[in-house]
Amino acid sequence: MTNQVMPNFIIKRVSLTPQREAVRFEGKKYTFSELYEKSYQMAGQLSGMGLKKGQYAGVLLNNHVDTVCIYLAFQLLGLRAVILNNRLTADELAWQINDSKAAFLVTENVFLSKWEVLNELLPKVKTILKEELAETDFIEPAIVEEINLDDICTIMYTSGTTGHPKGVLQTYGNHWWSAVGSALNLGLSEKDCWLCTVPLFHISGYSILMRSIIYGMKMVILETFNERAVIEIIRSEKVTIMSVVSTMLNRIEAELKDNLPAEFRCMLLGGGPAPKSLLEKCVSKQIPVFQTYGMTETSSQIVTLSPEHSLSKLSSAGKPLFPSQLKIIDINGNETAPKVAGEIAVKGPNVTIGYLNREKETSEKMMNGWLSTGDIGYLDEEGFLYVLDRRSDLIISGGENVYPAEIEGILVSHPAIMDAGVIGIKDDEWGEIPIAFIAANSELSEEAIFEFCRQKLAKYKVPKQLNFIAEIPRNASKKIMRRELRKLVE
Amino acid sequence: MTNQVMPNFIIKRVSLTPQREAVRFEGKKYTFSELYEKSYQMAGQLSGMGLKKGQYAGVLLNNHVDTVCIYLAFQLLGLRAVILNNRLTADELAWQINDSKAAFLVTENVFLSKWEVLNELLPKVKTILKEELAETDFIEPAIVEEINLDDICTIMYTSGTTGHPKGVLQTYGNHWWSAVGSALNLGLSEKDCWLCTVPLFHISGYSILMRSIIYGMKMVILETFNERAVIEIIRSEKVTIMSVVSTMLNRIEAELKDNLPAEFRCMLLGGGPAPKSLLEKCVSKQIPVFQTYGMTETSSQIVTLSPEHSLSKLSSAGKPLFPSQLKIIDINGNETAPKVAGEIAVKGPNVTIGYLNREKETSEKMMNGWLSTGDIGYLDEEGFLYVLDRRSDLIISGGENVYPAEIEGILVSHPAIMDAGVIGIKDDEWGEIPIAFIAANSELSEEAIFEFCRQKLAKYKVPKQLNFIAEIPRNASKKIMRRELRKLVE
Repeated sequence: MTNQVMPNFIIKRVSLTPQREAVRFEGKKYTFSELYEKSYQMAGQLSGMGLKKGQYAGVLLNNHVDTVCIYLAFQLLGLRAVILNNRLTADELAWQINDSKAAFLVTENVFLSKWEVLNELLPKVKTILKEELAETDFIEPAIVEEINLDDICTIMYTSGTTGHPKGVLQTYGNHWWSAVGSALNLGLSEKDCWLCTVPLFHISGYSILMRSIIYGMKMVILETFNERAVIEIIRSEKVTIMSVVSTMLNRIEAELKDNLPAEFRCMLLGGGPAPKSLLEKCVSKQIPVFQTYGMTETSSQIVTLSPEHSLSKLSSAGKPLFPSQLKIIDINGNETAPKVAGEIAVKGPNVTIGYLNREKETSEKMMNGWLSTGDIGYLDEEGFLYVLDRRSDLIISGGENVYPAEIEGILVSHPAIMDAGVIGIKDDEWGEIPIAFIAANSELSEEAIFEFCRQKLAKYKVPKQLNFIAEIPRNASKKIMRRELRKLVE
Repeated sequence: MTNQVMPNFIIKRVSLTPQREAVRFEGKKYTFSELYEKSYQMAGQLSGMGLKKGQYAGVLLNNHVDTVCIYLAFQLLGLRAVILNNRLTADELAWQINDSKAAFLVTENVFLSKWEVLNELLPKVKTILKEELAETDFIEPAIVEEINLDDICTIMYTSGTTGHPKGVLQTYGNHWWSAVGSALNLGLSEKDCWLCTVPLFHISGYSILMRSIIYGMKMVILETFNERAVIEIIRSEKVTIMSVVSTMLNRIEAELKDNLPAEFRCMLLGGGPAPKSLLEKCVSKQIPVFQTYGMTETSSQIVTLSPEHSLSKLSSAGKPLFPSQLKIIDINGNETAPKVAGEIAVKGPNVTIGYLNREKETSEKMMNGWLSTGDIGYLDEEGFLYVLDRRSDLIISGGENVYPAEIEGILVSHPAIMDAGVIGIKDDEWGEIPIAFIAANSELSEEAIFEFCRQKLAKYKVPKQLNFIAEIPRNASKKIMRRELRKLVE
């Protein structure tokens, strides 16, 4: 299938438009040519450290230009990047690295406390520090000139109802089709500039990088989100598009005094449903919000509201992008009628080919190319998607997915905790936050549990509230009845 | 390979943006919804005539909105359109229809003199007249909801050095990748509008239709080219992009008094190298000319000059579009150094999978995905392509390819002609025109030969000049030495 073969994206981009601006970070700008040179240099240094085509290697980095170059060096070498969420604890990271069978971990000094623990937990995994790369011997790298769209580019872990994170396989084709689908919906201009304040380790951030390479478009990277800085940079860098989750949008809207510049054309809003009140406030301040729906398994947005419907279909996520398809299925797997809710299923060349080393879970969630998302929604008569609930028990907190089952698994691993149940409750700042119900078989202090969680769980997953109860309500098949827990809160 | 599966393009487009303007023809406008309705209607009528998925059927039509709908009806039904050049003679058409094994011919009354002869020559091929379709029984059509990018969409015939036309297979994927590659180079805006005055039966016109569907973009169709009408329509319809060959551009440039409107952003110039003097005149009149290089086998442009180089690399065709690759090879098949001319070879997902029913020719021209174009060119140090010669002996007359071998074959089929040689000479109006050298073994009038040619050859292929000589110069291997013929002219 020669039709699936393409030039390596970054090599092609630098051959087409070497002098175009590619990245702006901390006031410095990098052309595609400069970005390529830096990436090529890193590819040579990674080669010097013994990394080779086809290998899986973990990457644990903050948002900065070097991260972009390391990702691109991975692509140049044909390495598969196991991209790690830097908010995770050492325990969580170790689980994912181990599961992926990665032999290397590329990280940086700032995560010292994490990788020191990792070195103890996974003594066979070799840690490579970004800061030490510069002093590494450069070996002329064996560059992958052509990629096959079916080749695996990245792996990102997501949890599910089972609690164990699974590595989502993202091919070059997944990223390519995602970028193309987005361009066909949003349009594409030489003057485009995409602001990336979302983490590069999320598909939301990584997909901006891929669009930058595929479109030949400038991206501005911020290490952390700050609403005042964002508004300033939109003006000074002539940003035209920005990806946000509703927590960010909330803060931007509150901070914004005057209208954004006319060239700012799209505020791409992902990471869970947004309150209608926020959307209405954005309309009144003329912030051009485009709601989207997507997930790690769809390599970012798969459903986006197109320009002409951004007002008339305000709280809809839109229609599936050109290359993709969507249907709502009832409990028997049949398509539902308009306005009838059911599970959202998606299909398309941007949809993952499956989960790393998990044939069973892959075949459970995917059939004939259709991925069952577990999310609940309906289509209106015109085919616009309205998302009602994300994966029934999924909590989305500040754009991060929090899976109750994962937190429950940690809680019950404590010797004094008999059973535990976690639900999300609404929160003005974060959208939702996780809270826990605990059935303990001895005297146990709140602080001891919090401390235990902080050791085992990323900060955003640590329950913000603990409630001690005699017994966690479970149904006949021993599943937690979260609805009952919710009643206890109300 | 579910990754190659996509929704049928026109079905997807109408679901995304039903109310957007799709086509403007003779002052009437059609939304995507209206276009779909008309196409669906025709699909039902074609079904009523017995056409079924997977069949090959000839299409011989002029440039009008019905033609667009018939092409789309073919896509809805999964029919393979053998798209015929309406300038061909009945003999030439019969050859192609016969070669493709098409069982049907969809045409219109205006080509009466051609299809009447065709009915005699190919009694088994059923002729379907567009004008009669409306009265045909409508059968609920079996619509192809999903296409595979490897499915064959269209077949267009091109001749080669052998003289026999070959059917170029164009898949849905070829058209898709061509449209995407073009968008990544030229950008894409909701306000785009592409003017189509080139024939829809050429890849230059058909590719505009495909872009219209894939981008959700308006296309304005003219039945014939007229420079005054073109300039007027660019203004009145807010055209942003137009495809031209140099004969057209010449006339537009000569007619143009004031600058074109600012929103007109691209004059896409294909169909053979253009004289530098014309390009310079366009620069001075601020006509934004983008030179391209492409052919039926690459589903339109494969190399295009990007916006930032349109002036600095004036007579270059540019660089290969993002999904595609190009190299220059010497006689031993090795890549040449910069500035060293050789044969142009191309590769990419927009390149044909081969020729219909011609495995031998396919394997001769294609190796590991690389297509040998037969054209001669070189790359400069920065990788910009300069095309020196099209397929050594190919003549390009007003954007139409004229193959000397094909004309020679017709000439020697005359009982009184012993041997014949054809070359192209420069012409101010058409770029090039074919002229013939004839070795006749009896008294034969010029007029008799012209008349014979007119019966057998499309008008643009008929030699414009006849030269009687004693013997056609041939080399040891009996190949015509066209250079010697050229000396006779000079």
